[in-house]
Formats: sequence, C-alpha cells, structure tokens
Amino acid sequence: MNRECIEACQKCATECEQCLDAMIDIDSNNDCPRCCRECIDVCLLCAQAMARDSRFADAICRLCADVCQWCAEQCGAHQHDHCQRCAESCRKCVESCRAMAA
Amino acid sequence: MNRECIEACQKCATECEQCLDAMIDIDSNNDCPRCCRECIDVCLLCAQAMARDSRFADAICRLCADVCQWCAEQCGAHQHDHCQRCAESCRKCVESCRAMAA
Amino acid sequence: MNRECIEACQKCATECEQCLDAMIDIDSNNDCPRCCRECIDVCLLCAQAMARDSRFADAICRLCADVCQWCAEQCGAHQHDHCQRCAESCRKCVESCRAMAA
Amino acid sequence: MNRECIEACQKCATECEQCLDAMIDIDSNNDCPRCCRECIDVCLLCAQAMARDSRFADAICRLCADVCQWCAEQCGAHQHDHCQRCAESCRKCVESCRAMAA
Repeated sequence: MNRECIEACQKCATECEQCLDAMIDIDSNNDCPRCCRECIDVCLLCAQAMARDSRFADAICRLCADVCQWCAEQCGAHQHDHCQRCAESCRKCVESCRAMAA
Repeated sequence: MNRECIEACQKCATECEQCLDAMIDIDSNNDCPRCCRECIDVCLLCAQAMARDSRFADAICRLCADVCQWCAEQCGAHQHDHCQRCAESCRKCVESCRAMAA
Repeated sequence: MNRECIEACQKCATECEQCLDAMIDIDSNNDCPRCCRECIDVCLLCAQAMARDSRFADAICRLCADVCQWCAEQCGAHQHDHCQRCAESCRKCVESCRAMAA
Repeated sequence: MNRECIEACQKCATECEQCLDAMIDIDSNNDCPRCCRECIDVCLLCAQAMARDSRFADAICRLCADVCQWCAEQCGAHQHDHCQRCAESCRKCVESCRAMAA
C-alpha cells in the first residue's frame, strides 16, 4: 500500500515549505533553500501520482528520491531546527520512495 | 497550530485524486468528479500557504472551504466507496479550514 | 476569451520563479521574494481554473490579483532586472485578472 | 534559451486541462483523459523547473516528454477538437522537451 509513501511526500512538502520560508531571511552556505523549493513541487507531484496509481509513479518516485536526497544533504548541514526537521523528513521520503520504485 | 488543517487539506487532495481517477470511468449524474479536480489544486495550495504562514492563508482557507463544501455535496450523493471517502475528507477539510479562517 | 489572462498568469509564474531563485542569494529589504513564492502557486492555479472554466474562476482571479498586486509593489521597489520584469508581469496579471473577475 | 520550452509546457497544461474537463462527460475508448490529468502536473512542474534553472531540469524534461508522448497518442486517436488540440500541443511539448534534455 502506498499510503505511507504519500504521507511521507506530503510531510516533506510541508517541512520544505517551512524551511524555504525561514531560509529566505538567512544566509546559506550551500544549496539550501533552493533544494527545498525543488522538493516541494516534486513531492506534491509524487503524492498525487501515487494516489491515482499513475503509470509514471515509479519514475516520479525515483526522481523524488533523488531530489529529496539532495535536500537532505543540504539542509542536514545546517543546525536550524527547521533545517533539521526538513532533512529528517527528506530522508524518510527518500527511503519510502525508493521502496515504492523498487 | 495549523498542522491539523494542513493534514486535512493533504488528505483531501489524496482522496479527491483517487475519486477523480475512478469517476473518469463512471457516468456521473452531478458535478463529480469536476469538484474533485477543483479540490486537489486548492487543497494543496492551502496546505502550502499555511505551512509558510502566508498573509493570504485565511483567504485561501475560505476559498478551500467553499470548494470542499461543493465537493462534499457532489460526492456525498454517490454511494461508491471512493466518493464516500472523498466526501468525508472534504467535510473535515471544510470544518478545519473554516476554523483556521475564523 | 480568457486566453490572454491564462497567458498573463503563466508568464507571471515564470518571472516570479526566476525572481525567487535570484533573490534567494540577495538580501531583501521587503517581502520579496516571499511574494514571488506566493504568486507562483496562485497564478498557476488561476490559469488552470480558467482553462477548465471553473465555477471558482472569478474568486480565484480576485485572489490572484491581490497576490500579484502585493508582489508588484515589493519587487517593483528593487532595481534588479529580474525584480523589474517580475513586477511588470505582476501588474499585467493584476489588470487581466481584475478584468476577468469583473 | 529555454523560454520556448517553458511556453510549450504551459500551453500543453492549458490544452490538457480543457481536454480533461470535456472528456469527463464523454466515454473514452482509451487512456484519455487520464493522460491529460498526468500531463497537467508534469508540464507545470517542468516549466517552473526550467524557469529556476533547476539541476533536475533535464530529468524532468525527459519525464515530461514521456508523459506528453503518451498523451499525444491517446488524445490523437480522438476526433474531438479539444483532443486534437491537446494532442498537437503534446507533440510540440515532446519535441521541445527532448531538445532541452539532449
């Protein structure tokens, strides 16, 4: 059942939106919050694609895992609470999307 | 805290996507699944607007409640499981969005 | 015909995305690029709502005009090329959406 | 310059939304309008990814070309005006996205 993966993607979109919003005011030394901007749209696309049992769901899950992996690395390098929460939700999304696409 | 409302919107988008996908193959006697198509985008917008604490969050919550109210009425008139689940998630979203915008 | 307004919304989403991406690296003295983040999703929703002749198209056009008006003011206060292009596309979107919703 | 490809994706999203809305009322003998539903979100994601010069733009363009190719085949098999316009915009999007990703 893909419900868990849908929820992981949606939670990731929420955390990335909060991280993006916060990081607009903070100087970044890496690709954060560009990675959050990227994650939001791909995670939401991925969740809807799974919900409709899309024939492209596997391909979109692989793309989503790649984007979230990048975001987990970038945000994970920052100690802000929003970055750490974002990185953690990204790591869960990577794991869940890779399992779906396997 | 708006976490509950974000999750209500995201769940509604998931249920509406499943209902839309199923109803494409089924003759409808009302505005279902057009209402589901409408709900998906507005619910996802609403969730992200709340996540970033948007100055338009209240206005978007009111719009989202209106769209979900319409969808709850349309899908609620059908006995398919996907329509009943969709209508139920819409009703919860209406309640949560109206409380947020109040 | 709403084709002109659809294209104004889509162009605005493009310019706002470019402005958002650029302003992530630049200190802002106002609500830019938060306004761009907001515009992107609302403009894209608005374009799709018009394309499907949604019963909520007028309400969404009014919301879109309000968001774009705010963004035009914020980005218009900056002299960067991307901000000026963004503000100009927002002003056109405001005008077009208000005409649609009238 | 990717402006042409962005506009091809946006036009495709518009035509797919119109085709989806029309086909909800019409019995289909193939995957139309599921293909239109799929195209809308992927085309809009693709346009925004190009606008922000995303590091995933090539991967998203390849995905978009695959989705649009499928949609062009499905809608191209129908003689409705909206299906023919949708198929034509999908074919242009395929060509443009493949050129971008090359």
